[in-house]
Amino acid sequence: MKKLGVEKPTSFFLKARHLDIQTGHSWIVVLHEDNAREYGVRAGDEVTLKWRHKETEVKVDLTKNLVKRGEIGLFQDIIKKYQITEGESLEISLAPPPSSLEAIKKKLLGEQLTSEEYHSIIADIVHYRLDDVQIAYFLASAFSKKGFSKEEIYYLTKAMAETGEMLEWSPNEIIADKHSIGGVPGNRTTPIVVSIIASLGIKIPKTSSRAVTSEAGTADVLEVLTPVEFSLEEIRQIVENTNGCMVWGGALKLAPADDRILRVSYELGIEPYSKMIVSIMAKKVAIGANRLVIDMPIGEGTKVQSIAEARKIRDIFLYLSRKFKIKTKVLIEQVDGPIGRGIGPILEIRDVLRVLQQKDNRPIDLERRAVKLAGILLELTGKARFVSGEKLAKRQLVSGAAEKKFREIITTQGGKVPSDSEQLTLGAVKHDLVSPYSGRVKRINSGELIRIARLLGSPYTKEAGIYLHKKRGERVEKGELIATLYTNSQQRLGLAVDELKGKDLFYIK
Amino acid sequence: MKKLGVEKPTSFFLKARHLDIQTGHSWIVVLHEDNAREYGVRAGDEVTLKWRHKETEVKVDLTKNLVKRGEIGLFQDIIKKYQITEGESLEISLAPPPSSLEAIKKKLLGEQLTSEEYHSIIADIVHYRLDDVQIAYFLASAFSKKGFSKEEIYYLTKAMAETGEMLEWSPNEIIADKHSIGGVPGNRTTPIVVSIIASLGIKIPKTSSRAVTSEAGTADVLEVLTPVEFSLEEIRQIVENTNGCMVWGGALKLAPADDRILRVSYELGIEPYSKMIVSIMAKKVAIGANRLVIDMPIGEGTKVQSIAEARKIRDIFLYLSRKFKIKTKVLIEQVDGPIGRGIGPILEIRDVLRVLQQKDNRPIDLERRAVKLAGILLELTGKARFVSGEKLAKRQLVSGAAEKKFREIITTQGGKVPSDSEQLTLGAVKHDLVSPYSGRVKRINSGELIRIARLLGSPYTKEAGIYLHKKRGERVEKGELIATLYTNSQQRLGLAVDELKGKDLFYIK
Repeated sequence: MKKLGVEKPTSFFLKARHLDIQTGHSWIVVLHEDNAREYGVRAGDEVTLKWRHKETEVKVDLTKNLVKRGEIGLFQDIIKKYQITEGESLEISLAPPPSSLEAIKKKLLGEQLTSEEYHSIIADIVHYRLDDVQIAYFLASAFSKKGFSKEEIYYLTKAMAETGEMLEWSPNEIIADKHSIGGVPGNRTTPIVVSIIASLGIKIPKTSSRAVTSEAGTADVLEVLTPVEFSLEEIRQIVENTNGCMVWGGALKLAPADDRILRVSYELGIEPYSKMIVSIMAKKVAIGANRLVIDMPIGEGTKVQSIAEARKIRDIFLYLSRKFKIKTKVLIEQVDGPIGRGIGPILEIRDVLRVLQQKDNRPIDLERRAVKLAGILLELTGKARFVSGEKLAKRQLVSGAAEKKFREIITTQGGKVPSDSEQLTLGAVKHDLVSPYSGRVKRINSGELIRIARLLGSPYTKEAGIYLHKKRGERVEKGELIATLYTNSQQRLGLAVDELKGKDLFYIK
Repeated sequence: MKKLGVEKPTSFFLKARHLDIQTGHSWIVVLHEDNAREYGVRAGDEVTLKWRHKETEVKVDLTKNLVKRGEIGLFQDIIKKYQITEGESLEISLAPPPSSLEAIKKKLLGEQLTSEEYHSIIADIVHYRLDDVQIAYFLASAFSKKGFSKEEIYYLTKAMAETGEMLEWSPNEIIADKHSIGGVPGNRTTPIVVSIIASLGIKIPKTSSRAVTSEAGTADVLEVLTPVEFSLEEIRQIVENTNGCMVWGGALKLAPADDRILRVSYELGIEPYSKMIVSIMAKKVAIGANRLVIDMPIGEGTKVQSIAEARKIRDIFLYLSRKFKIKTKVLIEQVDGPIGRGIGPILEIRDVLRVLQQKDNRPIDLERRAVKLAGILLELTGKARFVSGEKLAKRQLVSGAAEKKFREIITTQGGKVPSDSEQLTLGAVKHDLVSPYSGRVKRINSGELIRIARLLGSPYTKEAGIYLHKKRGERVEKGELIATLYTNSQQRLGLAVDELKGKDLFYIK
């Protein structure tokens, strides 16, 4: 494409100006704002100061008044330390642009990049050699010309995984994993799937995230019962002992570039599909998975919005899986409204326990999804050969083997599981919602449900949340209890009740 | 294009935690790093704190230890001021994304934008509602899909001009202007062109820039004789009185978005052609020009590198000129090496004065270029109807009318012109370079020449620079003087002489 070089000078000269100020900061120099603007230097930038064959690193402050254009202000500290005389000519050297910037330019101009080039970009992101603006140029290149080819997505994923820590397992060992793409409140299948898989002797080192925009993340929910923050080595130990784990992935150094990239994506508010796929797969590669089920729900509020989109995304997941030799299945399913009846950490872990303990009041939709996902994984691992995967998964629930495994993993992590799901204590401040009409629940507004749960205190206030007495498809009579709000303070309850005024959480017809 | 929303939450709740620290900063709150990362908040971000129907703006600091996840740390100052109790639930509201971000997304996804959309983007840049990362996404969109259409370049230019200050002149008045695209050392035609044009009763409100990567900008050179920083109203007065001015454009609020955009472009190191064109034309529109000559030299070190490129750029300039009703001519000319013999502020203004004073030792190449550019402008204005523009321009030089006008403008600006060009004092520390061979000068290395001039102190040390006794095409004998370096300190001279070791400034054959 048509382009011109925009030269930022690599160094320039300024005249030393003594400032009669003692700061205690011998590493700060002061530039005139005009010079800084002209040379592309920003407040806080680190530059190299050179004079008489000596040099030192300093940080830049800006001024309009302390020094004139063409001067560099030095505080007493630096003057004494280095004996720089007034009026002396100092060279200010800017850090050279990171080498990966050339690759970013090429990509913006529509060229394909090599595996090495992607590695250099991602390594420079991880080591803070590229700043946020440069990362933005890189992310924008995904929208340029042809975007990323499948091969480039592979290079990128590989680079993301390899620039972080990685877990290695014995050769030929089966390592299972699952990933749910977000947007469905209460979709807490992970503890159930991990328990079923591990109970059959298959390793599943599962990491989960915390909530960002949802009511709670799986890590927030598990935290009700157990610590979830471990080092990678501790995770390996837990998995070696129990075959499974249920931990927070956020503090690990798995594909660490992802974190910075996500923050820069926030500033635009959209990301290319490829970015989400790379982010998920890089973590699976880093954890050493070779059997993978991906749960991609489609429906109101979900991240992926249409079946057509979902299929395209699935194809890229499957391409990457072949490249990384991971046996993968992607489950695309229409999901309408929340899964389970509890929304909020304790309420959600109670749903999970009800399923594991096979209580009569267990949420069947949650059980069904977990069994389906576990079943697919069992088929991928070859464990389910004579019966179907789902049948085998269900058997582990019914026999109590999954619950036993769940207790074992949580105990190994230093947590404690109540002997009965009903022993969990919910928030003492509660408020019942009753139905204003008779009819059938047609829809529950997921977005509003999440907002209410957060107002009540979820995910930090573990006992806060909403219990849905009625769900989609169920009949309700006028005046009958439809949902209960839980929290720990009247103030929070007030916020939630205010929010509900004039809004329909349930559509009844 | 394929894309997904990346939701940054618009608000979230944290529990107040009292910190037993008196800071004097009642507007600073402390968040846990994990929360900040999750919610896309950065250190220094401004957020709104809401509680019990009250709210206030605060600035965010980050911590790993002072508070836990889910908590917000408050210093004694803010606690006392607002009576916030420990454990109270506070809502943290993030600033909503600027509305122009939607337009930037559209552009990145390959759509054409409307005039209104460009206006909103540029206004948000000027008013700091878009941050540097968001500006980078916008700039990157120039490389996406089809880039900017001609129409979009027009909208962008219009928005750039209209979001800054603009000069208005009487209707139907002829307002001339010129612009040289950089890269040629010593190309100091502006003072000569302005003097010629203004001497014929035509208004020419010329603004110039300072050096960024060159040895000196026209504003740096003029500063030898006169103040160059004026307000827009002062500029109007100078032009009303003398028909011309020669001032620094950098501190004016002409097309102010350009400044921020340039800094973000620095971070990538390239810009699309369209950006340069927009930047130049927006300033011409803002100053009210309706006759314009653009000097686009092609050669070693110039910004535009080939004739083919130059023609494409010219076509866009001419398209914009038609849209803005500016009569424009673009002069594309091969230029090899520096213009004139002086490189450095005083040496360059001496060359200018030698031309204006029609001295025998005047640099003919500088005079010829200035006369050519002035001639084109005179033809555009209709002033040169019976003789050619160049002939009329030359006449103003020979008759002394141009020099008289130059004195008048500089005096009006508060400066002083020496009665004779040779009265200017050069740096007292000097060093002669003699030719090691006999032969003809085939080429002068412009990049190296600029580097030496900067090492000697240009543009801040006005008396520093290089005088070229020999230029391209001239014959030199072994041992004959070929150039003289000037500066004001032995130290700087040492730097320059060191730099010259083993490098060829002149190619002689």
